[in-house]
Amino acid sequence: MIFTSDNWAGAHPAISEALTRHATGFSAAYGTGDLDRQVEATFNQIFEREVAVFFVGTGTAANSIGLASVAKPGGVAFCHNQAHVIEDECGAPEFFSQLRLAPVDGPAGKMSPEALRAQIARYPAQFVHHGQPAAVTITQATEIGTVYSHDEIEAISAVAKEKNLPLHMDGARFANAMVALNSTPAKMTVDRGVDIVSFGGTKNGCWCAEALVFFDPEMARQVPFIRKRGAHLFSKSRFIAAQFAAYLENGLWLELAGHSNAMASRLREAIAASSKARLAWNGQTNEVFAILKATTAAAAQEKGARFYDWPVPKGMENGPAPDETLIRLVTSFATSETDIDRFADLLG
Amino acid sequence: MIFTSDNWAGAHPAISEALTRHATGFSAAYGTGDLDRQVEATFNQIFEREVAVFFVGTGTAANSIGLASVAKPGGVAFCHNQAHVIEDECGAPEFFSQLRLAPVDGPAGKMSPEALRAQIARYPAQFVHHGQPAAVTITQATEIGTVYSHDEIEAISAVAKEKNLPLHMDGARFANAMVALNSTPAKMTVDRGVDIVSFGGTKNGCWCAEALVFFDPEMARQVPFIRKRGAHLFSKSRFIAAQFAAYLENGLWLELAGHSNAMASRLREAIAASSKARLAWNGQTNEVFAILKATTAAAAQEKGARFYDWPVPKGMENGPAPDETLIRLVTSFATSETDIDRFADLLG
Amino acid sequence: MIFTSDNWAGAHPAISEALTRHATGFSAAYGTGDLDRQVEATFNQIFEREVAVFFVGTGTAANSIGLASVAKPGGVAFCHNQAHVIEDECGAPEFFSQLRLAPVDGPAGKMSPEALRAQIARYPAQFVHHGQPAAVTITQATEIGTVYSHDEIEAISAVAKEKNLPLHMDGARFANAMVALNSTPAKMTVDRGVDIVSFGGTKNGCWCAEALVFFDPEMARQVPFIRKRGAHLFSKSRFIAAQFAAYLENGLWLELAGHSNAMASRLREAIAASSKARLAWNGQTNEVFAILKATTAAAAQEKGARFYDWPVPKGMENGPAPDETLIRLVTSFATSETDIDRFADLLG
Amino acid sequence: MIFTSDNWAGAHPAISEALTRHATGFSAAYGTGDLDRQVEATFNQIFEREVAVFFVGTGTAANSIGLASVAKPGGVAFCHNQAHVIEDECGAPEFFSQLRLAPVDGPAGKMSPEALRAQIARYPAQFVHHGQPAAVTITQATEIGTVYSHDEIEAISAVAKEKNLPLHMDGARFANAMVALNSTPAKMTVDRGVDIVSFGGTKNGCWCAEALVFFDPEMARQVPFIRKRGAHLFSKSRFIAAQFAAYLENGLWLELAGHSNAMASRLREAIAASSKARLAWNGQTNEVFAILKATTAAAAQEKGARFYDWPVPKGMENGPAPDETLIRLVTSFATSETDIDRFADLLG
Repeated sequence: MIFTSDNWAGAHPAISEALTRHATGFSAAYGTGDLDRQVEATFNQIFEREVAVFFVGTGTAANSIGLASVAKPGGVAFCHNQAHVIEDECGAPEFFSQLRLAPVDGPAGKMSPEALRAQIARYPAQFVHHGQPAAVTITQATEIGTVYSHDEIEAISAVAKEKNLPLHMDGARFANAMVALNSTPAKMTVDRGVDIVSFGGTKNGCWCAEALVFFDPEMARQVPFIRKRGAHLFSKSRFIAAQFAAYLENGLWLELAGHSNAMASRLREAIAASSKARLAWNGQTNEVFAILKATTAAAAQEKGARFYDWPVPKGMENGPAPDETLIRLVTSFATSETDIDRFADLLG
Repeated sequence: MIFTSDNWAGAHPAISEALTRHATGFSAAYGTGDLDRQVEATFNQIFEREVAVFFVGTGTAANSIGLASVAKPGGVAFCHNQAHVIEDECGAPEFFSQLRLAPVDGPAGKMSPEALRAQIARYPAQFVHHGQPAAVTITQATEIGTVYSHDEIEAISAVAKEKNLPLHMDGARFANAMVALNSTPAKMTVDRGVDIVSFGGTKNGCWCAEALVFFDPEMARQVPFIRKRGAHLFSKSRFIAAQFAAYLENGLWLELAGHSNAMASRLREAIAASSKARLAWNGQTNEVFAILKATTAAAAQEKGARFYDWPVPKGMENGPAPDETLIRLVTSFATSETDIDRFADLLG
Repeated sequence: MIFTSDNWAGAHPAISEALTRHATGFSAAYGTGDLDRQVEATFNQIFEREVAVFFVGTGTAANSIGLASVAKPGGVAFCHNQAHVIEDECGAPEFFSQLRLAPVDGPAGKMSPEALRAQIARYPAQFVHHGQPAAVTITQATEIGTVYSHDEIEAISAVAKEKNLPLHMDGARFANAMVALNSTPAKMTVDRGVDIVSFGGTKNGCWCAEALVFFDPEMARQVPFIRKRGAHLFSKSRFIAAQFAAYLENGLWLELAGHSNAMASRLREAIAASSKARLAWNGQTNEVFAILKATTAAAAQEKGARFYDWPVPKGMENGPAPDETLIRLVTSFATSETDIDRFADLLG
Repeated sequence: MIFTSDNWAGAHPAISEALTRHATGFSAAYGTGDLDRQVEATFNQIFEREVAVFFVGTGTAANSIGLASVAKPGGVAFCHNQAHVIEDECGAPEFFSQLRLAPVDGPAGKMSPEALRAQIARYPAQFVHHGQPAAVTITQATEIGTVYSHDEIEAISAVAKEKNLPLHMDGARFANAMVALNSTPAKMTVDRGVDIVSFGGTKNGCWCAEALVFFDPEMARQVPFIRKRGAHLFSKSRFIAAQFAAYLENGLWLELAGHSNAMASRLREAIAASSKARLAWNGQTNEVFAILKATTAAAAQEKGARFYDWPVPKGMENGPAPDETLIRLVTSFATSETDIDRFADLLG
């Protein structure tokens, strides 16, 4: 009953198998080998166009390099106030890009276009004192398990385009979001106006496979240098390519995301049915937020359930009562129905 | 006959096996899991004391974070003029540390203590205009396949200590150097006054396993934040721990380094015996530099040998004649005697 | 009737006279000359102890270097959400320090200790993901013309000390605040637990004279290099020393601040007495915020009054009605009673 | 007999007078006032075209912002190995631009085009490991008092253009060089292919007046933000404009540079005529380098002469004998013939 995070799971057997298989033989280093090229072509296929793609080992690296690629002096990138880039990356995006991150409000973990427009408006063109807008970044799926609908992405994109700002998507849980939306890589990104994607594999069954995808090669021009200067160019980069090769083959990535989403749905149902717990809000992916009696939470932990308490967002409606606690439960490719059902039993 | 680089090899089967074995089950993320702790203890053992150890995915990251941990404003780190940090890392050490790298001369790829002292002396204390000395970094084995002897490390260390500068060792080929010296981890580092080690596994049979080792935990105090801010903290960090677990078990690392060193010796013998080639200088590890007739080099490449031309160092004695070329040949754990012997045949 | 900003005024005649007088003769450069030393001694006198003092040319430089001197990797500095460092310095503090600025709420332009404590608590020790607290910075006088009382500074200081964080004071309008409090340099700073002061002269009659003052010389150890690396060490630095010499002589600085504060009081009285305007909030220094009928504001501008519209703070009580506007009026050493009275007439 | 540096002189009376005259009245801040605009127009006139010009307070700031404006990730700027940017700015150019400075050899303090081409060639396009060329910067007049002739600038410019690199000129002693060449601002810069100029006034009679000049406004697009983020935008920026107004009026700047150059010539003649001293090399501007018997140097200092010992450049021909010393003597607008003649007497 490990629901702490999807990164507590290891790697899917197909990933291990691919790593073992590609471990033999010699291959050109630093991303120039045959397997790298082949997997890059796979990215072209899934995004239905030629993309510039760069492999890195962490989602934070993908986000940071992505934002660095569109940086300006005194620049500001706009993100939701609960976004991973501003909450959980220890300033890496700022370190790589020298941008400031400006938090934007919005319900359900998603920026509202109005709040975004208002924040951008605080930085009038050529008024050097405040700095200048440089980028917008959204998290899909969000940190609280929700997803931006196609329309919602488009609405954010419209504001970004209106202000001439590139739009980045932190897709650490890209597959979970896409499956939840029943969308495609292109439909959820470039067709909606997204310019740069951090395409995550790690949380969905890889060891450490993240791809930074650009739809405009010109925008990506400095990325090889940004990545290398950030010490994120692997010499034996085929070990990332191998992970992606297996991940993207025969729809494994969709299958794994489908599984973890389904496990989360099963969990949500159990919580909704429980008298000792309720859903904090509706998510569509593999993160579930619940409000439990503190005694129930403690009892579950005693019985072996692992999960994190979660800070109560400002202005939360129907938040936890004094004797209640807000918790986060994350499912993964490795979560079993048995785990869910055992946890459901604990909720009574 | 792939002699381009040791990073053209993949991963040793024991590494793949460990990754597969540790892929199952859940484990605490971000370096806090049991396997991480266990491998950290192994580092204590091989260095014969408690060390602070941080896993990262690239040697450039280890070097950059190591230097960043001892950075000062306007600071300068001293390295050999052919060092990897100054030649091949795209400014990553400077990016992470905001230090300048000052090149120091010295024969055989190694800083001479006199040249080091002279360079440091150019930065008088409290003279803000030039900047201030901040660190010394040596590469062991060096970029040209030589190694610092124990005495040579101690001589550099003495200069560093005299100037109150921490001493870092870029050990991307740590094992090759140690085996060549018939030394031990502690004898080659902390016993000689080295403060920080980039302990490389990647070039010697891992996929991507580098450890940044500090002998003084106080010096390492900010490293967790430097690593995370650099986007170099892996969530599923056990995949690095697993590599090191296999690498350090039963002396595998020494065996692999011993093999690649032996293959390089065999290669050096073949070159010394050839009438069409000669050794550019004497190395002791797995990098061999040879001067060939350009026609011989071309013919070898046509027959399938792969290696890189190498820039002729300034002031090289007995350097290549106009019809000759300087090449680098690197062996690895995956190099076979057959490869060496086939190449020897090409040299006639 | 120029009320746009105190930096629209030029320099006081005593400043010009000092610059002219000290322009002759040769003097050691880069802050090592006799006049520099002499003015440093004056700072010791006014702060009643030995301080480390560094001259720079802009308040933004003083703030940025001050924060850089206490920076940590992944560090966060806490400031009021309307502070100059976060609103009006184009990211300079972040650029110099690589710190993030975290906004803290609080009424009347001042951080509340509770809000500060709550913000700091979001960065638990050794939890690398969020970053680590590094400093607290307050603005005295604040951006909206209020001042922290001695007790209020002490309350902020108590939180900072509790968390082992250095406390910086942005004193761009130090003199205005000190005169308003009827305090002394030491009482308003080091006696309250402030560690670093940006001591501003520019807005109070100098051309460009700012001093960065440290009470603990150890904390200032790297500042000479931070300042030089930031290109903020003047060769002919006596031109700043000369400004301060005149500024601090015979209480000129207090006289000028007293004058601008008095002009602001006269302005506040006129506004309070007007039927077409009201005070937005109570300030004690040389910045006055008023709510006017938009038509009144426009008419005043037409008659030659110059001032800025000001953004309405979130959650402002008794804010402007739809036909009203919030404006800022700043007085300076150069403001005359006549200007105030002419403006008062415009308000009717 | 102060020959330490031209920045030991204060300000010319005309500069003081202008500062005093412009100290009264109100004026728009942050470079937007009438005087700023008027002086910007003067720059257009002296460069015979519309230029983008930015005032800053130090030469290091001008150089650093200039290089930052053309920075690239992993980028390298090429400068002479004795250039001020690499020797005397404490890493400020690297700090602002995140570029590395690569030293280039060349006689007489000037880069040789061949050495420049060779250095650039070490950074092949798209080879991320070494980094990428980003800019070339020359110092005019050089650090050792020589000047690049028109042809020499053009030769450097040709290499820069061939490699698509912008060419920056550090003109801390712009006027001294221009007068020595009997050139004009345009002829010495844009007509030769220079893209960016740090136009110095400080060393030639101003307090602190430096202008960063761009011939291509597009190249300057980010400079307002780079300057502000570097804390180098003065609020009362008219105090710099006022200095330049006086400096550029009626050819004062040429007169002052002519004077200091003439004083240096007089000094060179005295040294050439002396039996106890000889010229280290031929300079054309206001820096004179001489080799004296150490006893002569000591005696001169005892009699009140002030100058700096200078490090002997590597490979210097006819350098100092063991009982000799290399010294630098700098003249300025404030140097008198009497000073020169008294010093000449000391040389016997």
